[in-house]
Amino acid sequence: MIEGKESKSFKGTLKYGMVGGGRDSFIGDVHRKAAKFDGKMELVAGCFSRSYENTLETGVGLGLTKDRLYQDYTEMAVKESQREDCIDFVSIVTPNYAHYPAAKAFLENGISVVCEKPITIELDEAEELAKLAKKNELLFCVSYSYTGYPMVKHAREMVKNGDIGEIRMVMGEYPQDWLAIPIEKEGQKQAAWRTDPKISGKSNCNGDIGSHIENVVSYISGLAIESLAAKLDILGEGRELDTNASIMIKYTNGATGHYWSSQVAIGYDNALKIRIFGTKGSIEWEQESCNYLKVTYLDGPVQTLSRGRDELYPLGGDLSRIPAGHPEGYNEAFANIYSNFANALFAMKEGKEVDNEKFDYPSLADGISGVKFIGKSVESSESGASWVTF
Amino acid sequence: MIEGKESKSFKGTLKYGMVGGGRDSFIGDVHRKAAKFDGKMELVAGCFSRSYENTLETGVGLGLTKDRLYQDYTEMAVKESQREDCIDFVSIVTPNYAHYPAAKAFLENGISVVCEKPITIELDEAEELAKLAKKNELLFCVSYSYTGYPMVKHAREMVKNGDIGEIRMVMGEYPQDWLAIPIEKEGQKQAAWRTDPKISGKSNCNGDIGSHIENVVSYISGLAIESLAAKLDILGEGRELDTNASIMIKYTNGATGHYWSSQVAIGYDNALKIRIFGTKGSIEWEQESCNYLKVTYLDGPVQTLSRGRDELYPLGGDLSRIPAGHPEGYNEAFANIYSNFANALFAMKEGKEVDNEKFDYPSLADGISGVKFIGKSVESSESGASWVTF
Amino acid sequence: MIEGKESKSFKGTLKYGMVGGGRDSFIGDVHRKAAKFDGKMELVAGCFSRSYENTLETGVGLGLTKDRLYQDYTEMAVKESQREDCIDFVSIVTPNYAHYPAAKAFLENGISVVCEKPITIELDEAEELAKLAKKNELLFCVSYSYTGYPMVKHAREMVKNGDIGEIRMVMGEYPQDWLAIPIEKEGQKQAAWRTDPKISGKSNCNGDIGSHIENVVSYISGLAIESLAAKLDILGEGRELDTNASIMIKYTNGATGHYWSSQVAIGYDNALKIRIFGTKGSIEWEQESCNYLKVTYLDGPVQTLSRGRDELYPLGGDLSRIPAGHPEGYNEAFANIYSNFANALFAMKEGKEVDNEKFDYPSLADGISGVKFIGKSVESSESGASWVTF
Amino acid sequence: MIEGKESKSFKGTLKYGMVGGGRDSFIGDVHRKAAKFDGKMELVAGCFSRSYENTLETGVGLGLTKDRLYQDYTEMAVKESQREDCIDFVSIVTPNYAHYPAAKAFLENGISVVCEKPITIELDEAEELAKLAKKNELLFCVSYSYTGYPMVKHAREMVKNGDIGEIRMVMGEYPQDWLAIPIEKEGQKQAAWRTDPKISGKSNCNGDIGSHIENVVSYISGLAIESLAAKLDILGEGRELDTNASIMIKYTNGATGHYWSSQVAIGYDNALKIRIFGTKGSIEWEQESCNYLKVTYLDGPVQTLSRGRDELYPLGGDLSRIPAGHPEGYNEAFANIYSNFANALFAMKEGKEVDNEKFDYPSLADGISGVKFIGKSVESSESGASWVTF
Repeated sequence: MIEGKESKSFKGTLKYGMVGGGRDSFIGDVHRKAAKFDGKMELVAGCFSRSYENTLETGVGLGLTKDRLYQDYTEMAVKESQREDCIDFVSIVTPNYAHYPAAKAFLENGISVVCEKPITIELDEAEELAKLAKKNELLFCVSYSYTGYPMVKHAREMVKNGDIGEIRMVMGEYPQDWLAIPIEKEGQKQAAWRTDPKISGKSNCNGDIGSHIENVVSYISGLAIESLAAKLDILGEGRELDTNASIMIKYTNGATGHYWSSQVAIGYDNALKIRIFGTKGSIEWEQESCNYLKVTYLDGPVQTLSRGRDELYPLGGDLSRIPAGHPEGYNEAFANIYSNFANALFAMKEGKEVDNEKFDYPSLADGISGVKFIGKSVESSESGASWVTF
Repeated sequence: MIEGKESKSFKGTLKYGMVGGGRDSFIGDVHRKAAKFDGKMELVAGCFSRSYENTLETGVGLGLTKDRLYQDYTEMAVKESQREDCIDFVSIVTPNYAHYPAAKAFLENGISVVCEKPITIELDEAEELAKLAKKNELLFCVSYSYTGYPMVKHAREMVKNGDIGEIRMVMGEYPQDWLAIPIEKEGQKQAAWRTDPKISGKSNCNGDIGSHIENVVSYISGLAIESLAAKLDILGEGRELDTNASIMIKYTNGATGHYWSSQVAIGYDNALKIRIFGTKGSIEWEQESCNYLKVTYLDGPVQTLSRGRDELYPLGGDLSRIPAGHPEGYNEAFANIYSNFANALFAMKEGKEVDNEKFDYPSLADGISGVKFIGKSVESSESGASWVTF
Repeated sequence: MIEGKESKSFKGTLKYGMVGGGRDSFIGDVHRKAAKFDGKMELVAGCFSRSYENTLETGVGLGLTKDRLYQDYTEMAVKESQREDCIDFVSIVTPNYAHYPAAKAFLENGISVVCEKPITIELDEAEELAKLAKKNELLFCVSYSYTGYPMVKHAREMVKNGDIGEIRMVMGEYPQDWLAIPIEKEGQKQAAWRTDPKISGKSNCNGDIGSHIENVVSYISGLAIESLAAKLDILGEGRELDTNASIMIKYTNGATGHYWSSQVAIGYDNALKIRIFGTKGSIEWEQESCNYLKVTYLDGPVQTLSRGRDELYPLGGDLSRIPAGHPEGYNEAFANIYSNFANALFAMKEGKEVDNEKFDYPSLADGISGVKFIGKSVESSESGASWVTF
Repeated sequence: MIEGKESKSFKGTLKYGMVGGGRDSFIGDVHRKAAKFDGKMELVAGCFSRSYENTLETGVGLGLTKDRLYQDYTEMAVKESQREDCIDFVSIVTPNYAHYPAAKAFLENGISVVCEKPITIELDEAEELAKLAKKNELLFCVSYSYTGYPMVKHAREMVKNGDIGEIRMVMGEYPQDWLAIPIEKEGQKQAAWRTDPKISGKSNCNGDIGSHIENVVSYISGLAIESLAAKLDILGEGRELDTNASIMIKYTNGATGHYWSSQVAIGYDNALKIRIFGTKGSIEWEQESCNYLKVTYLDGPVQTLSRGRDELYPLGGDLSRIPAGHPEGYNEAFANIYSNFANALFAMKEGKEVDNEKFDYPSLADGISGVKFIGKSVESSESGASWVTF
């Protein structure tokens, strides 16, 4: 069931299950569309909600059979692991608080995992998952979707190949405005869980979108954070968690960074923008214009690279699916995450050693880094935005 | 197999077959991804190439069974029509010259059709297909993909509702540069068939992309062409067909238009751009920034509407799948064409009368208009770009 | 009184007079600011209006002495020519109908001229001015302001040097919206005279702004028009002259062009945009972003050149006054026209032969071409937008 | 000598002198063009350089008489003050280190001042100037040019009128790339003095351009800084002063800000950009597109206001000189600073009390704030970018 460019890496079809993603979920449908995009995997099992009625309705609607629709994720992990046609992996797309226990249950039962970020609330939990995965020789992919864009991958390779020299500064921003007013009071469900510390964890804005800046910058630049000073602002009447975050960064190589994320920045939809400045050039990428990359070299004019038109490093270029000027978007980026992870699973099934770097999907190490980033940001903010060692 | 927003209109799953779309085809994979995007249909039969070996390889790769992989489209039309589990429709995605005979074969055998544009080379052929479809009570969808974008649909509703008043001028352009040099001589297959009059028909550039301008303008504005003056330029050494087209239009309501399409406009990828100016306002849409629509009203500032953020008329808004700022692109637009057509097929299966306007998919009338536009443009160009009545 | 870069070409200070540009004039003040910008000339005489009271008020306000404020332009031409400190040139900035008789009066009295476009209503009048200027060995500059921009000058040199190869297509547009509704009925003076055939001549929109497209394209590309088909639309209740123009062009080298100008294109201020496509590359310039030039070469990425940053040909680069990113605009472009013309006048005063090409100011030949373009467009439009030989 | 819109406020002509601005100066010529732009003042005296030969050459070139060309600024202050036709004010446009002593000399001799920023190196010096000006009843204008743009003035009025509600966040940035490599070693004079602490003071980048962010944000938002944490980076081999600055801000109203300035951000010319987010809307202005202002209100689409097109508050709208779409730029912004200051001087000459707020020019209070901002930033940076109370 492989099509187009992807066919060469085809090794069969994977089977997967899903935890979360029932009625009212936005991200569940995105994951399912992404998973089926290249025909490498098929959804066969699920526990889509804490409400079994929701799981049943969703699962039947998706054409699943009742015997693989489960009351809770523990049951699902146990029973699936006992089947001969056990799922090859599970996708965990619940609100934050359930990521850790669900992932743990599947890893303990020998099932690989795709998990939404942040993978846990606490850092030690994340490290525990890493130990479990290693011990049981399982793969773990964190669905940091924005690293799935071809132009982001090209940017990573540019930095790696020294095209822009030594990195001096990084500017990352991710403004949105959907929480500019407290819509959670009017029953908007996405807003309700994100602004609730019991479900979302210690951080809302910085955890939800600031952590994407951290991830994409890390992925492109390879820089490690040495310390940070974070000011998390709780804006919007009656709120308990941050809806705006301004974070200064010192990297271990001496470079300086700033990450700004906001859910109350009126005029912005989902405007993740990453700028990386080196001694020989710079790169700039905006998620809402994801098919383009602004590149400037010392003494040269500003260039706009276009996916499908300009030559890209294979890491990115090979994932460009349709011709230049035919916009690819969020779904394709997400599909690339699944596609690369599937290739790793195929390799593992064939008994090969799976090098995360080679298969280029967001790993547990990335997930741990994200949890740490969120925790350190909260720690700094609570001490008056003072500098905290990473 | 229904997900997200689409679930409300679910009526079961359709089965379809495909003609064309084998190895080396770009558009075949796009059609298949679009068709499966919303889970409303499943590919079960195919004749993917004039080479049966290609059909077999492609079909098996797609998981089809051999008994539904056919040597030619006539065999496919006849045999499928005799099966109890006959396909609900066929998708014809071959090069241009085969559209007409293939479509005819399926219509004659009682099978509805999705067909790439131009649906025929000659106008009388197109009209014959219309008669056949009507006689056999079949549906026919022309895959004019660009009308699938939510912002294009919103623009149509704006005009219909009088938001910009009476239309005075239309500016349509569609520059590309992939044929700036004769790459067909170096064996690029897409270039080879498009520049070959035996396969492409009377027109290359204006037929391939100029006709998209004609279609999107017609869809949004509702204007009818009264006459046109077309200058088709054959640019690029050794070529026989146009690679650039400049066409002035007089509409029946007195408005003036200009359509420019080019495959040799260095610096442009796939830059379809439509501007419509009325007495009370204007709208402007660029395909490469498909999630936005520029709108200006008399005496007001320029506004940029964003899909998912700003309120849209339901015709467009209902087809917005993911939140604002998460880019949707070409694949989603194409999926919308299939999704709307599927809704019409479901309705037909339930015995309801299918009003094309209501189901909002590109119909045979649109396809006929496109064939006429191409023919009239060639006629004008051959007479020195003189004015030709439409 | 020379400053900055310009000082090297300083040869003294010129004295000039002005016809038109009194109270309520927009362009008079622009001319005066441009003339004094580089300190090469001083305003000393004027006939600013048909109303002597207006001339007196304006002139005194500008610090002129009464003996050089005149009742009419004929008096001014005669009397100035008899003074020892006669003006070096006159600037004619009246509404269109007076350009020809005023220019004629000064040329006949041995005074060089700067004149607003169109220089005359009829072609034979323009040719008469040319003969007069030649006979009396006078200089004549047409204030086609947009060729004064450094990036336009760079574009000209790029074409001349073959950087983009042979030109294949030209797309010129100049949409505005200030006449979207008939504001002339509410006493707006600019609108009143422009829409009045007695003052404006045969054409409003195409004469006022379409002729700028013609001029800038000619300046950059060097192409000559072979024939054109023009549709001039009279939009706006109660009007007699065109407010929208769509013109197809065949150039003598075989290239195709389209010029669109409009005063009723809601959403546009003064959006002159020129795109020129060659066999090896393309250039694109937008007046409202006048400090940048989009350039793309075959097989390379899209580049954005920035005035002051990227290396320009001297014709443009030498007229860049302030560092990159400090916007220069309309006033500086206009000042460049005056500055280059002043250099030519200095050279003439020194007895040198003045080669228009070398001094790079818009000449009578450009002005004649503009008058012809307006006339031919009207001729074509009146015969149903049929093709008319240039 | 008044033209156009400005004529209504005309009260005569001012005479001024200049300190600095000789050969090789960029900003001197800008000041002179700005000063003469509206015809309200005339340059009559100068000490353009420490080299008298340079002063003579520059002064004579500018048409000044020798008796008003001075060896040093002290001589100039003293001698001018003794003349009956003493200058109305002096413009000080030297490198930073001389601002304070020169300004002091003129104030002590009863002459009003226009001074480049930073007005002094040390805060107590700035406060001393303030006392002097007050004591001697003199006016003092700091040439913070960017507040001269009409759209910046409109933004200020929007905030003042509550159009965007309470301010929550501010993002200011000002990237350049002209010092990406150490061109000061190759004798570039602008680079040489700016990177030299003896001439430039304690800070280069943040002092030169970071202080513009501080000023424009303060002007538009009215916010007061409570504390800041600044990381000043010395990038570029062999340098002693910062070329990049990242500064987090806490404002007294609880809002959060970030100011980033850089001279090594490859790909940027002079990209000052200010974004201000309130509870009811947001505004965004980019200096390189200075004629536009992006405005978004809660629940409304993004709007792009255009100077000359959309209705502006008079503070900005009255300084828009030419019609929409005819770009105004840096020179006009600078001219507005001079024009407003001239109006204040006229009023003072008429014996009226001069309210700085009313005449809307950058005052000594602004200048003092800038000096403090630079000092506090250095203080924070030297203590590891820790938080420093303002």
